[in-house]
Amino acid sequence: MSKNNKENKKNKPQRVKPKLLKGFRDYSPAQQAARENILAKLRQAVELMGFQPLQTASLESADVLLGSHYTEDSLAELFGFVGPDEVNMALRYEFTLSLARYVASQVNLPLPFRRYQYGNVWRVDKPGPGRFREFMQFDIDIVGTKNMLADAEIIAAMVSMMEGLGIERFEVRYSNRKILNGLIEWAGIDRDRGPDVMRVLDKFEKQGRQAVIAELGQGRTDDSGARIPGLNFPVEQIEKISQFLQEGLASENDPMNWVDEHLAGFETATEGQTELYAIQSHLSSMGISESKARVDLTIVRGLGYYTGPVFETTLLDLPEYGSVFSGGRYDNLLDRFQSQSVPAVGTSVGIDRLLASLIALDAITLNEATSQVLVTVMDREQTSAYLAMVAELRMAGIRAEIYSGDTKNLTRQVKYGDKVGIPVAVIAGSNEFEANQVTIKNLAAGADKAGATDDREAWLKAEGFQITVDRDQMVSQIKTMLGIK
Amino acid sequence: MSKNNKENKKNKPQRVKPKLLKGFRDYSPAQQAARENILAKLRQAVELMGFQPLQTASLESADVLLGSHYTEDSLAELFGFVGPDEVNMALRYEFTLSLARYVASQVNLPLPFRRYQYGNVWRVDKPGPGRFREFMQFDIDIVGTKNMLADAEIIAAMVSMMEGLGIERFEVRYSNRKILNGLIEWAGIDRDRGPDVMRVLDKFEKQGRQAVIAELGQGRTDDSGARIPGLNFPVEQIEKISQFLQEGLASENDPMNWVDEHLAGFETATEGQTELYAIQSHLSSMGISESKARVDLTIVRGLGYYTGPVFETTLLDLPEYGSVFSGGRYDNLLDRFQSQSVPAVGTSVGIDRLLASLIALDAITLNEATSQVLVTVMDREQTSAYLAMVAELRMAGIRAEIYSGDTKNLTRQVKYGDKVGIPVAVIAGSNEFEANQVTIKNLAAGADKAGATDDREAWLKAEGFQITVDRDQMVSQIKTMLGIK
Repeated sequence: MSKNNKENKKNKPQRVKPKLLKGFRDYSPAQQAARENILAKLRQAVELMGFQPLQTASLESADVLLGSHYTEDSLAELFGFVGPDEVNMALRYEFTLSLARYVASQVNLPLPFRRYQYGNVWRVDKPGPGRFREFMQFDIDIVGTKNMLADAEIIAAMVSMMEGLGIERFEVRYSNRKILNGLIEWAGIDRDRGPDVMRVLDKFEKQGRQAVIAELGQGRTDDSGARIPGLNFPVEQIEKISQFLQEGLASENDPMNWVDEHLAGFETATEGQTELYAIQSHLSSMGISESKARVDLTIVRGLGYYTGPVFETTLLDLPEYGSVFSGGRYDNLLDRFQSQSVPAVGTSVGIDRLLASLIALDAITLNEATSQVLVTVMDREQTSAYLAMVAELRMAGIRAEIYSGDTKNLTRQVKYGDKVGIPVAVIAGSNEFEANQVTIKNLAAGADKAGATDDREAWLKAEGFQITVDRDQMVSQIKTMLGIK
Repeated sequence: MSKNNKENKKNKPQRVKPKLLKGFRDYSPAQQAARENILAKLRQAVELMGFQPLQTASLESADVLLGSHYTEDSLAELFGFVGPDEVNMALRYEFTLSLARYVASQVNLPLPFRRYQYGNVWRVDKPGPGRFREFMQFDIDIVGTKNMLADAEIIAAMVSMMEGLGIERFEVRYSNRKILNGLIEWAGIDRDRGPDVMRVLDKFEKQGRQAVIAELGQGRTDDSGARIPGLNFPVEQIEKISQFLQEGLASENDPMNWVDEHLAGFETATEGQTELYAIQSHLSSMGISESKARVDLTIVRGLGYYTGPVFETTLLDLPEYGSVFSGGRYDNLLDRFQSQSVPAVGTSVGIDRLLASLIALDAITLNEATSQVLVTVMDREQTSAYLAMVAELRMAGIRAEIYSGDTKNLTRQVKYGDKVGIPVAVIAGSNEFEANQVTIKNLAAGADKAGATDDREAWLKAEGFQITVDRDQMVSQIKTMLGIK
């Protein structure tokens, strides 16, 4: 390479690769339209129940998200960094702590506070298929009450959101951490080990009793050959848990009877039972059947912060997706900020996983927000007439655009409409203008005939998918073609 | 303090202040409901014109946002940091570069691409009243065409969005950078100094001719006493610019005539004029009057990257808000990523400034997304009956909630409804249940009587704002009270 060439290269602007960060994604128009559609339905469902929209800041100070004792390492797990004014900050990884901060700072907030929030959250997890570092969540919570009416309302909202999305075959199942705490007490296990036991019990539904027993004891080797260490509880304690799993959760029994028989002396368990009966009764009063929402003591939720009822929602036709909506009661919401405790209950759904499941269930179709009509520009001298058509279509509430690209070639213009997914094209050349007519072409109908262009043309005409009508019939003919009344 | 006390303090959880980061904010339910309302109207307006929703990642790699030659300092101006895998990344500060990345990476994207995107952007500006570090923008662009139909469509969209928001008194004004480039050539100013001249010309409308002349020459001292350095152009060059400002922009003249007379020999200027005439003609064909959108050569837009038509939108009743929608043509969109140039034109609006201006214009009211009805719980034994009422109201499409707080005190329950802004309360005690009736109270009507509680009670009854009706009349009576048909 000559020196001259080298210098030329140096002076050239250095190009950058148009690449996304690892674990991030864009949403194409079809995907984004589907997400907007989902959000609109969820919002409608929860607003009907009095939940109000809140929007908090995306960045929070590190101590709001992590408490006062955070380390550099824990900050790095959160897209955390040193921001302006040398303040440690991070992108939120969920909404609950921001909700807590908001509630703690609003002295005059009327309680109970029913709020929903949706938006992006960020997590530095290892990216993988369907696992992203930025994703959208939709949360609802009722803050400031211990009343089981609130827990029942959250469950009712989950039912209502699922139904609003057009899903029929789903099931909300709920349990109560207090019963499990009673069980742990009954088994003679130290209260401090409760969270460890919960984490293992959470695996019962997927992994079965033997796996749980092994993990409570000396550990096990899973299917992949990985060693899972055990909690090393004494045999007599494990026996008691095993008895609960075997007898209490046996499908032919009502687990509540088992609780009555074995945990009656343990106040926490009885309290938990009373709460579940209250929820059951409230749901029934709202007309929600047991086929939609029922007590199931196998529900645990792995997370440490739940203090009472816990909920999961599964799609009966997609059990492998696990729980799409999960939540529960967490009465320690504000403990990070103040000594006065504020109880709360809520649930959360990941919009993108929900979208994936709706697609798998054929409950949503992609590609919705394009123009319905493309007005082509066959003769540039007639641009004014084409624009008048576009304006008229829009006035009639029909999504329409003029072909605004640089090509004069009509075939390429129509092809553009086809590729974007616009169902109808309007075409007018000298013949049409002389006769005061327009040609209307149903692009959607011909889409499957895309292979043979000539055949398609003939087919469209024969089938009435390409018609020439009087100019003043344009809007009404297009409405008919689009199935709009 | 005894040692014991000290140790107690040490063991206590260390509380964190529930504080927002500087320059960040939360949106209360009333504010967020108003923003959602604005977004819905903007989306409706642009979807009718065939714009499709796109959503890109919030975090981008530093070179996508800043080009390959960025420095640590420029990264720090963007909420930039070293993320996972030691990659330099930052939160987006606008959407255009993400749009460019998206277009450059989508080989099969049909062009022209009409897209809209809304969402948060982040900037490390000094925070101040109304100036935040996180704010929401709404952008529309048409990518992949040089056709002036696209520019006209963007202007038409600005008109349509303003009208969709219910704003009547606004004005879109547009100009063309090419005419100004011709002017600069005519004045004998070096093309490389173009961006500097544009930046100064942009001040003409606000600061006047003398200020512009001074800044083109030896500089000036502004009202605050601050020294603004001059560009030190020779007198004969400044004279020519001054002539344009004085004669060309004189309100009694059509500036296009001045351009004809003086810049006819300058190809760029003529090209710019032809483009503006095309836009004028297209807008007229779409039925958009000159009172809504007109040519105004005082429009410059300070930013360097515009290459053709530029637009501004002002609210005639709030001129001090400046331009609410701004945009223009930028034909170098993809230059960072590839050698093949892709033209584009678009506009952008800040949702929060728009909200502030709509509030100032009384064109929007806050407080919209609360329940419409609060069903109080006077007698807990009757919870089932109250829940049935709530379910019935929701079935009728009325936003309703049961009082789910812990207090049994009816006055406090009603006060909660009042504070949240719920307009109607339903009350039923033993009298009502015995007679199979309910009492309906219009809380909204009494709101201004909040001072004198006793008077209010009497007033509500006298005015028919508190009525007792048969249980089966509940829904229809509430609909009447809410003005729902």
